[in-house]
Amino acid sequence: MDGEQPDLSRLSLNQISTNTRTLGETVEACSRQGIRWLGAWRHKIEKSPAAAGQLIRSAGLRVSSLCRGGMFPAASVQERHNRMEDNFRAIDEAVALGTDLLVLVNGAAPDRDLDGARIMVAEGIEAILPYARKCSVRLGIEPLHPMFAGDRSVIVTLQQANDLAEAFDREWVGVILDVYHVWWDPNVYTEISRCGNRIFGFHVSDWLVPSPGMLMGRGLMGQGVIEIHRLRRAVEAAGFDGPIEVEIFNEQLWQTPIDDAIRLIQDAYLNFV
Amino acid sequence: MDGEQPDLSRLSLNQISTNTRTLGETVEACSRQGIRWLGAWRHKIEKSPAAAGQLIRSAGLRVSSLCRGGMFPAASVQERHNRMEDNFRAIDEAVALGTDLLVLVNGAAPDRDLDGARIMVAEGIEAILPYARKCSVRLGIEPLHPMFAGDRSVIVTLQQANDLAEAFDREWVGVILDVYHVWWDPNVYTEISRCGNRIFGFHVSDWLVPSPGMLMGRGLMGQGVIEIHRLRRAVEAAGFDGPIEVEIFNEQLWQTPIDDAIRLIQDAYLNFV
Repeated sequence: MDGEQPDLSRLSLNQISTNTRTLGETVEACSRQGIRWLGAWRHKIEKSPAAAGQLIRSAGLRVSSLCRGGMFPAASVQERHNRMEDNFRAIDEAVALGTDLLVLVNGAAPDRDLDGARIMVAEGIEAILPYARKCSVRLGIEPLHPMFAGDRSVIVTLQQANDLAEAFDREWVGVILDVYHVWWDPNVYTEISRCGNRIFGFHVSDWLVPSPGMLMGRGLMGQGVIEIHRLRRAVEAAGFDGPIEVEIFNEQLWQTPIDDAIRLIQDAYLNFV
Repeated sequence: MDGEQPDLSRLSLNQISTNTRTLGETVEACSRQGIRWLGAWRHKIEKSPAAAGQLIRSAGLRVSSLCRGGMFPAASVQERHNRMEDNFRAIDEAVALGTDLLVLVNGAAPDRDLDGARIMVAEGIEAILPYARKCSVRLGIEPLHPMFAGDRSVIVTLQQANDLAEAFDREWVGVILDVYHVWWDPNVYTEISRCGNRIFGFHVSDWLVPSPGMLMGRGLMGQGVIEIHRLRRAVEAAGFDGPIEVEIFNEQLWQTPIDDAIRLIQDAYLNFV
């Protein structure tokens, strides 16, 4: 591998990587293994985001981001309104948890109309941004892999995420770059350069071949085909020096004893990120 | 649906849509149901492409394309050479079968290096083109959905396919546009306009939600979320008026009695293409 290893202090464990564990179990294991950052998911902290934040901080950890807001497109005005309300709650939860970054997974078209849904995404971000700013929460637009265009996100390339982000204040709206979602894109390095300081988050895992499936096709870094190191160098060249979230949906990893799983993640991070 | 229905005489049944049937069974059923075109696969005709061509013609059908050549990137010089040889055989089979169009599925990187693999694809096309011209066989570059970037194709967008095709004579190298592979792309309509008369083939199916899987996620037109009619109008506006191949990998369709399956395909074609 050319270039230096990433700093272990920048490794953030995304809660999905230990999906079968409670927040308490994950925090304790992170503390034992020297992990400094945690990437949080709403369904794992929402009963009491403030208590979750307290638990995380008391173990010496910080929260790199909260996943997820977004899901803006909907078939009815009422449902679009409900989605906005959910985004306001997500911003409140980010504040209570103690993170300044909300990840946006933007949603699919309710009715085949991709252009219409993409407009609803832009309008949704515009509608929640004033409240996010007031709460000092930044919004990170995450392009998902195009295989999720039908059910999770009409935002499927970094070019699109950049186009969208550029319509807003660069301090408050940026992009989340997950290697699993963008690695295939012939324009990815051009678009990373274009991001500059708009890269709010960087997520790593690997693409297994053969793929076990769309959602569960991720492996530890080094087990798949993604040029992760090259992508890390590119995002750093663009100016990103924040926490690097390890976000792995993988059944085998979830069945591994948690301290062993974290050590595997740390090794993979040092050798392949 | 806005605009007119497509002409039924342009419907080409891709052999994959009746994958559990022999060529003979498919040809007979097409003949009974008034289908005029067949899209052929090498593994279904290669024992005797000439006899297959004879069988198809004698039933009053024509062959819209042969799938597939390509698969150019490989780890060793010897293996790359073997892939070229296989492409020469594919061109011979197209001639014997009686079609002037070979579909190229271009292959994955052998070693994570996407840029290197993309160069091998360009070099591969350049290497086989003189023989293809001599045999009067056109080469159609098919971008596959990015979810196949790890195992089937480093060419994953129409923009890339256009960039690649433009390096060659437009009479002999063009693109194959399959809605299942390109529907998600925010640049797809711009790139379709750019194709002009470089669109050599147009394939239809639909993207099911939830998806049953990467390979088997296709449904009959109208069962999924793709704006098929809009895409058909765009390729026609660009100048394409050739056969429209219906290419559906779907277990349920494969278990349907073949005459019923073809009638379902004809209905879906008339109503949603």
